[in-house]
Amino acid sequence: MNIDAFRTEHDLLGDLPVPKNAYYGIQTLRALDNFKLSGVSLSEYPNFVSALAMVKLAAADANHELDCLPSEKHTAITKACQQLIDGKHHDQFVVDMIQGGAGTSTNMNANEVIANLGLESMGKEKGEYQFLHPNNDVNMAQSTNDAYPTAIRVGLLLGQNDLHLSLENLIQTLADKGEEFSGLLKMGRTQLQDAVPMTLGQEFHAFANNLREDLALLKKLGSDLFTPVNLGGTAIGTGINADPRYQGIAVERLAAISGHPITAATDLVEATSDMGSFVLFSGLLKRLMTKLSKISNDLRLLSSGPRTGINEINLPARQPGSSIMPGKVNPVIPEAVNQIAFEIIGHDLSVTMAAEAGQLQLNVMEPLIAWKMFDSVRLATRGMDMLRELCIEGITANETHCRELMENSIGIVTALNPYIGYENSSRIAKKALTTGCGVLELIREENLIDEELLADILKPEHMIAPRSVTKKTAKL
Amino acid sequence: MNIDAFRTEHDLLGDLPVPKNAYYGIQTLRALDNFKLSGVSLSEYPNFVSALAMVKLAAADANHELDCLPSEKHTAITKACQQLIDGKHHDQFVVDMIQGGAGTSTNMNANEVIANLGLESMGKEKGEYQFLHPNNDVNMAQSTNDAYPTAIRVGLLLGQNDLHLSLENLIQTLADKGEEFSGLLKMGRTQLQDAVPMTLGQEFHAFANNLREDLALLKKLGSDLFTPVNLGGTAIGTGINADPRYQGIAVERLAAISGHPITAATDLVEATSDMGSFVLFSGLLKRLMTKLSKISNDLRLLSSGPRTGINEINLPARQPGSSIMPGKVNPVIPEAVNQIAFEIIGHDLSVTMAAEAGQLQLNVMEPLIAWKMFDSVRLATRGMDMLRELCIEGITANETHCRELMENSIGIVTALNPYIGYENSSRIAKKALTTGCGVLELIREENLIDEELLADILKPEHMIAPRSVTKKTAKL
Amino acid sequence: MNIDAFRTEHDLLGDLPVPKNAYYGIQTLRALDNFKLSGVSLSEYPNFVSALAMVKLAAADANHELDCLPSEKHTAITKACQQLIDGKHHDQFVVDMIQGGAGTSTNMNANEVIANLGLESMGKEKGEYQFLHPNNDVNMAQSTNDAYPTAIRVGLLLGQNDLHLSLENLIQTLADKGEEFSGLLKMGRTQLQDAVPMTLGQEFHAFANNLREDLALLKKLGSDLFTPVNLGGTAIGTGINADPRYQGIAVERLAAISGHPITAATDLVEATSDMGSFVLFSGLLKRLMTKLSKISNDLRLLSSGPRTGINEINLPARQPGSSIMPGKVNPVIPEAVNQIAFEIIGHDLSVTMAAEAGQLQLNVMEPLIAWKMFDSVRLATRGMDMLRELCIEGITANETHCRELMENSIGIVTALNPYIGYENSSRIAKKALTTGCGVLELIREENLIDEELLADILKPEHMIAPRSVTKKTAKL
Amino acid sequence: MNIDAFRTEHDLLGDLPVPKNAYYGIQTLRALDNFKLSGVSLSEYPNFVSALAMVKLAAADANHELDCLPSEKHTAITKACQQLIDGKHHDQFVVDMIQGGAGTSTNMNANEVIANLGLESMGKEKGEYQFLHPNNDVNMAQSTNDAYPTAIRVGLLLGQNDLHLSLENLIQTLADKGEEFSGLLKMGRTQLQDAVPMTLGQEFHAFANNLREDLALLKKLGSDLFTPVNLGGTAIGTGINADPRYQGIAVERLAAISGHPITAATDLVEATSDMGSFVLFSGLLKRLMTKLSKISNDLRLLSSGPRTGINEINLPARQPGSSIMPGKVNPVIPEAVNQIAFEIIGHDLSVTMAAEAGQLQLNVMEPLIAWKMFDSVRLATRGMDMLRELCIEGITANETHCRELMENSIGIVTALNPYIGYENSSRIAKKALTTGCGVLELIREENLIDEELLADILKPEHMIAPRSVTKKTAKL
Repeated sequence: MNIDAFRTEHDLLGDLPVPKNAYYGIQTLRALDNFKLSGVSLSEYPNFVSALAMVKLAAADANHELDCLPSEKHTAITKACQQLIDGKHHDQFVVDMIQGGAGTSTNMNANEVIANLGLESMGKEKGEYQFLHPNNDVNMAQSTNDAYPTAIRVGLLLGQNDLHLSLENLIQTLADKGEEFSGLLKMGRTQLQDAVPMTLGQEFHAFANNLREDLALLKKLGSDLFTPVNLGGTAIGTGINADPRYQGIAVERLAAISGHPITAATDLVEATSDMGSFVLFSGLLKRLMTKLSKISNDLRLLSSGPRTGINEINLPARQPGSSIMPGKVNPVIPEAVNQIAFEIIGHDLSVTMAAEAGQLQLNVMEPLIAWKMFDSVRLATRGMDMLRELCIEGITANETHCRELMENSIGIVTALNPYIGYENSSRIAKKALTTGCGVLELIREENLIDEELLADILKPEHMIAPRSVTKKTAKL
Repeated sequence: MNIDAFRTEHDLLGDLPVPKNAYYGIQTLRALDNFKLSGVSLSEYPNFVSALAMVKLAAADANHELDCLPSEKHTAITKACQQLIDGKHHDQFVVDMIQGGAGTSTNMNANEVIANLGLESMGKEKGEYQFLHPNNDVNMAQSTNDAYPTAIRVGLLLGQNDLHLSLENLIQTLADKGEEFSGLLKMGRTQLQDAVPMTLGQEFHAFANNLREDLALLKKLGSDLFTPVNLGGTAIGTGINADPRYQGIAVERLAAISGHPITAATDLVEATSDMGSFVLFSGLLKRLMTKLSKISNDLRLLSSGPRTGINEINLPARQPGSSIMPGKVNPVIPEAVNQIAFEIIGHDLSVTMAAEAGQLQLNVMEPLIAWKMFDSVRLATRGMDMLRELCIEGITANETHCRELMENSIGIVTALNPYIGYENSSRIAKKALTTGCGVLELIREENLIDEELLADILKPEHMIAPRSVTKKTAKL
Repeated sequence: MNIDAFRTEHDLLGDLPVPKNAYYGIQTLRALDNFKLSGVSLSEYPNFVSALAMVKLAAADANHELDCLPSEKHTAITKACQQLIDGKHHDQFVVDMIQGGAGTSTNMNANEVIANLGLESMGKEKGEYQFLHPNNDVNMAQSTNDAYPTAIRVGLLLGQNDLHLSLENLIQTLADKGEEFSGLLKMGRTQLQDAVPMTLGQEFHAFANNLREDLALLKKLGSDLFTPVNLGGTAIGTGINADPRYQGIAVERLAAISGHPITAATDLVEATSDMGSFVLFSGLLKRLMTKLSKISNDLRLLSSGPRTGINEINLPARQPGSSIMPGKVNPVIPEAVNQIAFEIIGHDLSVTMAAEAGQLQLNVMEPLIAWKMFDSVRLATRGMDMLRELCIEGITANETHCRELMENSIGIVTALNPYIGYENSSRIAKKALTTGCGVLELIREENLIDEELLADILKPEHMIAPRSVTKKTAKL
Repeated sequence: MNIDAFRTEHDLLGDLPVPKNAYYGIQTLRALDNFKLSGVSLSEYPNFVSALAMVKLAAADANHELDCLPSEKHTAITKACQQLIDGKHHDQFVVDMIQGGAGTSTNMNANEVIANLGLESMGKEKGEYQFLHPNNDVNMAQSTNDAYPTAIRVGLLLGQNDLHLSLENLIQTLADKGEEFSGLLKMGRTQLQDAVPMTLGQEFHAFANNLREDLALLKKLGSDLFTPVNLGGTAIGTGINADPRYQGIAVERLAAISGHPITAATDLVEATSDMGSFVLFSGLLKRLMTKLSKISNDLRLLSSGPRTGINEINLPARQPGSSIMPGKVNPVIPEAVNQIAFEIIGHDLSVTMAAEAGQLQLNVMEPLIAWKMFDSVRLATRGMDMLRELCIEGITANETHCRELMENSIGIVTALNPYIGYENSSRIAKKALTTGCGVLELIREENLIDEELLADILKPEHMIAPRSVTKKTAKL
């Protein structure tokens, strides 16, 4: 160990050498030593790092306004936080996303980096905390227990635009395909069995509309769930050691800095330990992913074949499909979406268990929750972009094949049900199946409906929407 | 087999003897033979049975209005449905909650029971379907694929009042306890370690406020999620075989009959296969249960002991606690709530997997989803009633013990942090721990704060809320 | 309340009237009042009730041999237990499967029923516990904490034969189908895309072999996991209040009575709170169900159509498939298996969370674990019987259609890969796809392989197993 | 784009520029473009990369022996694989762990890196595949569908030693603590309520023994589950395009190269799509983690306080506990273990859903399964090392406090149960609780047991193990 490359820092547990060029300090170092776990560090989630800086800046503003933080320190902290918000020095957020201590290590990582960046701007050396102290100054009037969950919430708010945009674009692309295929007739299937006719456009519009509900919910709830923060509650929500005016100012500043309508939670004791927002938001993402997985399954089914499957649509080829079967092109994009869904549903379980495991005035499992939330959002966003760009946009349909399948189907008999009754229809269907004959052929053979009416009923266009059945036209 | 005790019925697959006194018919019988699985039948969930009858009644009303269903049949169906809505003959809903066929068996169970009840009111024998037919008349203009999911939604709407009331009562009782204990000082704990003072009232108010958010969400979303129905979409949402005016009338009638603001879903193809409402509502229940489980864990922790635990509160004794340890009384009620939580979280997973498994124009796993939804609501409702009546209402506090624990704690040093700085406070805390001395004792020994200020700072009442710290009063 | 219909009983919490004809007593009654939750009572699981009786009998035998239990009482307990083992009076096990108290209510339900049955055989009235006492006599030397988990284990052992037999029969039926279809050529599919040829027999043999591994594991681990019991550990595994000789005798007796090689756990403190056996066994069932669900999905895919799907096999019709689409027959049996899988996977989560929630010397969530275990075993058993009897046995194949699909496929080009190289094969496959031509046609056009070799390579029989490729025969 | 920094490669979909210094090629590049998802690449799991190389080497050996691969190419492949096995060039494994295509991208990443490393050793340029081809040579006689799952299995086998060692060390440390604390008396607790006496040594031995069962299972099953591989099955297990002798040689070589007793799976069609081994192994890890989480919860409970909790043991301080509460030291290590448990349980769900989603001849979700498996093993290993080194080893006990708690408890009355009967004991316990008196005091007051016997019974040492109760010594 080259002694010159280190500075010595001190904390409750003693002294440790810290790399001289590190902006983080001794408590971050202890966390690095303690938690070598996931291999994923805070720096992976820039919105989280930015949000931490925003919280620290808001607190510093409030402390300064209350005359608790001198101008020089306030300026230094402001400059430091601004650098982080601008995306600089994120590599200094080295702590593992899985950590004990309910986020203390993350909070101290932020406090130390900001203190040392601030010291630098003051012309001091890193570690000269007598001039700007990670705890006394940067963390002033805060506890991990309010600063950290507030930062998670703000960080998630910062990421929502991307998530919404990604979903919105996907919906639009699906709806565009719905328009493109609006005249393309095909068989609908229930229980994987031939059902009744529909258009491929109806199918894609249904995908789009299905996701539209989630976009609305994400927009509405995402904001509702994360704007109330417990900043100012300090250790357990009682606000111990905080000035009574502090919370109001800090929260207002945070709203201004983040650009989101942050408010103070009504009951700070409750808000300190509550993980309900994360559970519900994770549940929303889970719901979104069950839908995307279902849609991906449908795309894989509809494009199955080409010769021994359904083959109604073609997904764009993204890569050679097989190292042994030449010419095979696989639906790799929806397959990846399925896996993303299973991953995020797994995250949701981890979040749920972590939320349930809270005890008394704090939920100590928050770091895992934070990780899973940021990761689910990122993964869902990336997955939807991928699905849209690399798959949906390039989908084409096999119109002739779709129509042939429909015309050859048994399900067409359903349309006759109102005219010949359920039992007659059943009998005809059964006969068609066993003989291999067509449904119409048999209807005619038995002369069950006159030709003109039959032609009218069986117009596929008539079959994809409700239509009036006038008794007199039917034989039964 | 006593041949006189049976009537013969016929369907697509052939003939079967049906018990003469059964209101259900051959297709219900087939389902009974096919699905001997969970041991739990439809009749366990009266709201579901009622909702099925409401859907059938609404459809009959619409069909009658459109001149498709003669008055005599309409009257018979109306009488039959009303009996079911009134809670009669629910024992005839015998089909297993787990069933293949996407709910066809449930739908046919309803169709057959209503047909035979109707026949009875018409003075006909059971099984004389030429006068009133389960498919042609009772199921007219419907498919399982629209009638069944509509009934699930309506059934869940019918059950929400009880759920909301149960939660509301629980919240009120927790809030009452919050008032009762509002002056009772105790230590707050984070990470199971002594933190800073609070009142027991704050703790119970936090429980109440924590659940209040869920009540609001359940009220808001519960209605939003389940009022749009796909009735009128028939087989796959295209409305095949339904009169164009049918949907409007049927949905309006259903709203009137059920007393809920039922509306038609915008995209019926989408609505036919979409399970998103169930996934989200299940997610809300999951969230509620993680909170109730956390609260139950807290109650068990706070009442632990009596001599070797925390022992701040006493739960009412509900039953002798042990078959071997005399006098032991256990926190059996919160323990049961924990288990209900794990059960409902398990349900949520089943619902999620079932939702993800939908394919193309239908989700064939709907029967499992229906079961888990109705059961989760029932179990949550029962669990909350139990928790309130048999536990929360009778909780008492050990005030003296609470105060002693607080006064003896180390955490009281946190209040000095703003006056003597983080490092001094840490040192004092450490010294108190290693020597076994009290915190105040050491402060005085070192003369770090003058006596008057100290007394003021340490007033516990000052510690449970933010307060101003004026620089001049602090030594540092 | 008719006062004559009740007797008064007394416990730690006071007096209560118990229905005179009830064999259970006051503590069971308290549990009934406390836990109105799942609606599922102990009596639903006969093996569990029998196992409770076996444990009580084994304990009584040991106590009698140690001169702690007089002969008269021993005889009475023996008779009572034997009745329960014979399946009588199970309706007296009325307590809800979800209960607080770590099984105390279940244990007391057993103690009380046995005491009152014993009293009856002694010519005494129910409730005359001075002659035979639920706690002092029936529960002698036991705690809920050892008697209850022991009974769960024994109960699960009692149910394993049925589970194994059901699985064994299913495997055999699948293997029989494998034989039946051993000569039937078809296309294999990977990623839902045409891959390379195989036989339908290979497909069914794979199903059978897939499950064979689970049968072996269930047989091996089921016994290993549940034969060690903590009987004799009493309250926390230290054996307090038990005679040192008691454990040995009781466990030996339990082995004899149950017919299973029960042994004493090595570390009774560990065994008292350990839920690992349940977690692993539940994990085995979960694994089995993921396989059965996958097989069910395959059956549904292979039978999809009949006209617009894969349609390689036909599942036997079990019930009319639709209330609106005449003639539709759905794969209802595999659909039910899917749902059973999701249900049991949900159980596994509940078991996992319950196991994780154990604290210190006991896992108080055991009742939920017991319920989910017994229910998963029952449901899996019933589901496999259903799948075999009502689906697999009646499967038929569409041989001609299978062969046509294969001959028309692109995947057949894979067989040429070793002769013409990956890039040539890819090119041919691509050309076949875009032109709609057959693969062989194009090979010939380009004269890439001479006719004789080609014929030999392309024999489908050569394609379903490895074969030697001699360089000299290939053009490249 | 500096054109000189790239070479052009070609595949089924066309041309792409590949960075000149990259050992990977065009198909890897396509995967990089397609899958920007998890941010975690293959190179994170060195055992997986090594295993891929081992599989490629074994295949090359077999192909060489069968005269299909010339010596020069064989030598080049051998050298390339050996470099990877030695840990070199792992940074070239850049593909995302989440990928569509059932592992094709991973397999091609390996094929391309090996080809280019081989070309280098042959004195050729990267990309000159005419001399050594990723598909024709490196992938010879293989499909992704056999090479990839085989590599996952081998990779997991390679990682098991570390996992076992970590668990073994943890067990030993817990057992050592059990010895250290073997004479330390304390109260046992059930349902968080005072139960009966035990030693702290019994508690730690129970932890050790609890985990011992998992070590045995992991050792036994880990090998059983992963040694059978489907290498040689090629595309769907039929072995198409493989020489009949190939499988035998390749598997034998793989066993030799890996040092694990690899065997050929019996039914290769079954083995190709089967994910059962992963589901079960994941279930084993889940079980292990529920235990580690429970143990962590116990450690956190036992060390709770110091002044307002149980405070029986002290965990070593690892970092300052709070940014606001000075002197607070938190149980950060077990808290991290809890989170690891929730993470791995989440993984298990993802694995389960991915396994269930397999279709027909392949499970296309394998890449997610592979990721979750390798990550769970790594995380569990790291977590156990952390728990042992940074927590268990440094635990100390508060002996005096433990004894005081015990002597002051009510639970001590349990020992009197056999002498004075359950009802008397209950009464005394109740009286002690309501009056605040000690149990012994009351016994004496009522003169229920004579003094000598009482003293003997109540010796705590007598209470931590079974002991004989002679009737004559008891009053009742």
